[in-house]
Amino acid sequence: MSAEKKLAELKSRLLEIADLNGAASVLGWDQLTYMPPGGAAARGRQMATLAKLAQEKFIDPAIGRLLDDLRPYEESLPYEDDDASLIRVARRDYERATRVPPEFMARLNVHMSEAYMAWAEARPANDFKKVQPYLEKTLDLSRELANFFPGYEHIADPLIDYADYGMKAASVRKLFAELRAAQVPIVQAITAQEPADDSCLRKHFPEAAQMAFCEEVVRQIGYDFQRGRIDKTHHPFTTSFSVGDVRITTRVREDYLGECLFSNIHEAGHAMYEQGVDMKYDGTPLAGGTSAGVHESQSRLWENIVGRSLGFWEYFFPKLQQTFPEQLKGVSLETFYRAVNKVERSLIRTDADEVTYNLHVMLRFEFELAMLEGTLAVRDLPEAWRERFRADIGILPPDDRDGCLQDVHWFGGVIGGAFQGYTLGNVLGAQFYAAALQAHPEIPDEMKQGKFDTLHRWLIENIYRHGRKFTAPELVKRVTGGDISIEPYIAYLKAKYGQLYRL
Amino acid sequence: MSAEKKLAELKSRLLEIADLNGAASVLGWDQLTYMPPGGAAARGRQMATLAKLAQEKFIDPAIGRLLDDLRPYEESLPYEDDDASLIRVARRDYERATRVPPEFMARLNVHMSEAYMAWAEARPANDFKKVQPYLEKTLDLSRELANFFPGYEHIADPLIDYADYGMKAASVRKLFAELRAAQVPIVQAITAQEPADDSCLRKHFPEAAQMAFCEEVVRQIGYDFQRGRIDKTHHPFTTSFSVGDVRITTRVREDYLGECLFSNIHEAGHAMYEQGVDMKYDGTPLAGGTSAGVHESQSRLWENIVGRSLGFWEYFFPKLQQTFPEQLKGVSLETFYRAVNKVERSLIRTDADEVTYNLHVMLRFEFELAMLEGTLAVRDLPEAWRERFRADIGILPPDDRDGCLQDVHWFGGVIGGAFQGYTLGNVLGAQFYAAALQAHPEIPDEMKQGKFDTLHRWLIENIYRHGRKFTAPELVKRVTGGDISIEPYIAYLKAKYGQLYRL
Repeated sequence: MSAEKKLAELKSRLLEIADLNGAASVLGWDQLTYMPPGGAAARGRQMATLAKLAQEKFIDPAIGRLLDDLRPYEESLPYEDDDASLIRVARRDYERATRVPPEFMARLNVHMSEAYMAWAEARPANDFKKVQPYLEKTLDLSRELANFFPGYEHIADPLIDYADYGMKAASVRKLFAELRAAQVPIVQAITAQEPADDSCLRKHFPEAAQMAFCEEVVRQIGYDFQRGRIDKTHHPFTTSFSVGDVRITTRVREDYLGECLFSNIHEAGHAMYEQGVDMKYDGTPLAGGTSAGVHESQSRLWENIVGRSLGFWEYFFPKLQQTFPEQLKGVSLETFYRAVNKVERSLIRTDADEVTYNLHVMLRFEFELAMLEGTLAVRDLPEAWRERFRADIGILPPDDRDGCLQDVHWFGGVIGGAFQGYTLGNVLGAQFYAAALQAHPEIPDEMKQGKFDTLHRWLIENIYRHGRKFTAPELVKRVTGGDISIEPYIAYLKAKYGQLYRL
Repeated sequence: MSAEKKLAELKSRLLEIADLNGAASVLGWDQLTYMPPGGAAARGRQMATLAKLAQEKFIDPAIGRLLDDLRPYEESLPYEDDDASLIRVARRDYERATRVPPEFMARLNVHMSEAYMAWAEARPANDFKKVQPYLEKTLDLSRELANFFPGYEHIADPLIDYADYGMKAASVRKLFAELRAAQVPIVQAITAQEPADDSCLRKHFPEAAQMAFCEEVVRQIGYDFQRGRIDKTHHPFTTSFSVGDVRITTRVREDYLGECLFSNIHEAGHAMYEQGVDMKYDGTPLAGGTSAGVHESQSRLWENIVGRSLGFWEYFFPKLQQTFPEQLKGVSLETFYRAVNKVERSLIRTDADEVTYNLHVMLRFEFELAMLEGTLAVRDLPEAWRERFRADIGILPPDDRDGCLQDVHWFGGVIGGAFQGYTLGNVLGAQFYAAALQAHPEIPDEMKQGKFDTLHRWLIENIYRHGRKFTAPELVKRVTGGDISIEPYIAYLKAKYGQLYRL
């Protein structure tokens, strides 16, 4: 069989697997948007069947043989070549998938779903003791999973690889240490001042009008409704069935305007990334986002750097006032701008503002490393959380519910690699945006006129269209000429919040 | 391996196949309700992949061996036993699926999708010549398909078997001849009179209010929203992902109240059948409806016998008037009842009233037989249609668009077995309802008070819960003690329309 035929055979096998995964995503989307309660039992089973078949088909040794046989062909091509990249990325996925015995994955999946159910009961009951044995087993299994990838520097490295390929515990730690040193003084300087008044966001805003306004906003920034749609759910997410069908979900609080609005822009950022992947990669391992950090960089770039900028609201605030004339009567652009950028010490990561958010993430990242290293026992987590939270964020969590039980990640997944992507996203978002500004200094002025296509096109051209072809570090190198760096992010925070809070 | 273990192995394989089919149904539902246009290409591919995998897994010779090995166990059990029935129905499906070579199925599927696309263009263009070669090939393929099942009496029999297992061309022909003889005089007597005035249905009825009213109606007759939901689509249908999730779809015309209302009751009838299947059959070949005819019997029973009865509207008409006080001001119950039972000679099967509907179906059924027999050439279909339509329905179709091109069935499927189920449904619906009345004469009086649960429970107990355990003829025998018969249906028409039109 020629290399050409082998590549066709590989692509055909991978397409079938992509179809199964795409189908599973449709079932997952429906489960969280429209499915009636009676559908739950069969749905869980159907999704498990699709996942099992996709996994079986992917770890088929025939795929390994094709990948081996195609190595000379791959090496004859430039690194950036589509075929070479497809083979390279498929091999990386294949090696990861085949390192872990199916028996272990089955055991892990059963445990994760049990741990999730225990957490779903324990969190409202504020009962850490109830989930402690589950979390201890999760920690054991997380270590076991990491140990299928021997040769790591830090036991968290293989787990970080799953989400942010190419990053390591050491490199993230170093980056986070720099970030903390630069960021903590900003937080302290701001929170020493009188908090911003965000009462203009906390009136009654009817749902239908909020939804219509948000739809207009995301349409205008570039989310393509011919290849997507918005539906309601409990916890907003973005999901992709193909490059031609990338959907976002949202929720609405009628007593708080910020929820639906910024959640929509955030998810639209994720979705525009996936919609922007070159259509020729559809159904291949090159479709999708390249890492958790790069994915989050796009949601945070659009949500915060664009969506909470003064220029953005110069354009949109008059339209928002037309939508809610009673509620926003007499509210100035300046007041509104300050309200959507209110900084405060808060308990919940997902509610945290742009300035304090990373502190929430870094704390979790370090606890993950400590638990994996064995320097923090699961039973000591609640107390460690309280202490560290008071030290870092400056408030004492009143309970575990809004302390170490607040995030699902450790209870629905493994310990390790779950959180760093959020902060990497903030850092990378600012770095990418700085590069876009360097190429197109007109971007901020265009925003004031509601024009986002220069920025959007630059992101497509430099980031989105490549899908998974380049790793995050490669992408940063291509776009900025250097490595991941906190400087643009810190410069952004200082400029924006320096002006807002006269630092 | 013991029979018990073999049965467990069989069930486990069938469950995986049911999961793939359930997943494909979710994708199909989404395609016709919410999918953005950009999703179409990948969605077609994903659905084809799921269908192919389900088919591959089902025709696996291992299933054949299990079915063979389980024959002594099956024969040791009573016919009605769940295990015996599961093995029997799975074997029937397996034999049907394995008779047809996968190569032929692939060829047929490609052709059907080409023929469908040709029809989708040809119908609006009123261009029969364009689809004629496709339809000729469909006819060849339909014969080829039938010939994989040698030993038939009539070449349509194997094709009728797909939809209405146990019925044959000869038995349907005989039944339809009796029906025609009894029904044509009724049609003639009614259409000789002044048509009913249905102008009260043809005002402006806002969509949201129609949807809300229809939801209340189907809830009250017994459709379970914990295990279903209603969404909008172009051509209403019912789909089932599991016994716990059976969804209906609807469309609304703001200028005609009858569309959304009766379409919802019709689909709710289909859905209540599938929701009523015993939960223990979920994920097995025993879930679902037993035949097209029995399925249609339930949609037509609820839509027509219940939903267009005077008693039903004694209860619901005051509520409808509350919903649309302006539009229905001064409209009497009697006027409304006559309007929803208006009989007229009309061009389109799906718009036809209860009295003329079967004439549309019988004409198609006979054309199917004639084409398969070779006594009607495809090229002569348009002319034959016009002649026969004028003779049977009494009007001359002005074109092929609303003549022989009006239904998708022959263009998206095979010729043979596509239509008889609709009329069998009308006949069976009346027969089942008569049996229910015999057991519970209080049903019509209960309806006047908005109570439908005696009827619903009787249908669950006698029909729905069995799923596919019994064939349609077996079910009729169990329920009525006899064979399928037109008498209850003709008696129903005579009583209802005799009163309405003073025949």
